[in-house]
Amino acid sequence: MGGTELENLITMFARLPGLGPRSARRIVLKLLREKENGLVPLADALRNAAASVHTCSVCGNLDSSDPCAICTETLREARICVVETVADLWALERAHVYRGKYHVLGGTLSALSGRGPEELAIAPLLKRLEQGGVEEIILALPATVDGAATAHYLIERLRRFAVPISRLAQGVPIGGALEVLDEGTLATALRARGAA
Amino acid sequence: MGGTELENLITMFARLPGLGPRSARRIVLKLLREKENGLVPLADALRNAAASVHTCSVCGNLDSSDPCAICTETLREARICVVETVADLWALERAHVYRGKYHVLGGTLSALSGRGPEELAIAPLLKRLEQGGVEEIILALPATVDGAATAHYLIERLRRFAVPISRLAQGVPIGGALEVLDEGTLATALRARGAA
Repeated sequence: MGGTELENLITMFARLPGLGPRSARRIVLKLLREKENGLVPLADALRNAAASVHTCSVCGNLDSSDPCAICTETLREARICVVETVADLWALERAHVYRGKYHVLGGTLSALSGRGPEELAIAPLLKRLEQGGVEEIILALPATVDGAATAHYLIERLRRFAVPISRLAQGVPIGGALEVLDEGTLATALRARGAA
Repeated sequence: MGGTELENLITMFARLPGLGPRSARRIVLKLLREKENGLVPLADALRNAAASVHTCSVCGNLDSSDPCAICTETLREARICVVETVADLWALERAHVYRGKYHVLGGTLSALSGRGPEELAIAPLLKRLEQGGVEEIILALPATVDGAATAHYLIERLRRFAVPISRLAQGVPIGGALEVLDEGTLATALRARGAA
């Protein structure tokens, strides 16, 4: 039904989050109908992103410069907002209510999955605090059991820096991921943040 | 929020059918998390498909060989099933009830869109019939006003070849596209096809 290359391409699209065989076929046919305006530019954009997008060595964001544009922006406030994923960082940026910096943990502690502190970007966060100049740490972790455990663990580890630690207000729905929240809810939760 | 290359990539994904900014971001983050197993292979698969997948010069299918695998398969019956799109051809192939060949028109006649016969692959279809050996033509066009007009037009143009012309049984829902039908409905409609 269209040769190995085609089937291979459809299979790869079908594996992407939110897609299945039917939507993958539709996408591939659209791309092939507009080869020069669809398929080739997308292949190039993927190649460019593979070559130029890297994880920021300071905060863990994805960007084409390292340190990333947010870390190098001089007007940012000296606060660090700790998030689980890059998607969460982007969600907060889209809400346009936070003007500080970020730190991407890359996950949460999880007793069930056996994910310990050494698998998260906690050591780089401690290093940033040791360098000083941080006015506040905002924990923007998911409102899940693992997120709460991670926040609790971080509060213990960060206590010695004597930097105020806050967290997003309860208002984030229980069990919800930051990434899928609307911007109004994110803005409200950030503004109403309380001492941790 | 991640550099020009990233935003460019997300924008391109968001334009694909069925996707939007949110699903595009999720896909791009997933691909970047697994660069060597996700992003790079997808870029390669797109490049390979761009280089190797072509429109079959006989029937209009997409394949990495020309003529396509269906046109060159010697065991196929000497029938031609006329479909609107490659997606429709693939849907019939997935139903596993038809063992003949195909002809992709690339659209339907449309008074509203001003699409006339010369914009569809009708001349190549007439050429195939002139070469002889065709036992039946099955019109598997969408059950829409434009599909019916196209079928009517084709019947007039094909009459002189004295080849039996049939069409899919009414059973295809009115206004529905072949591509989204379940295989059972497609199988039933094909088996119950009647004289056109």
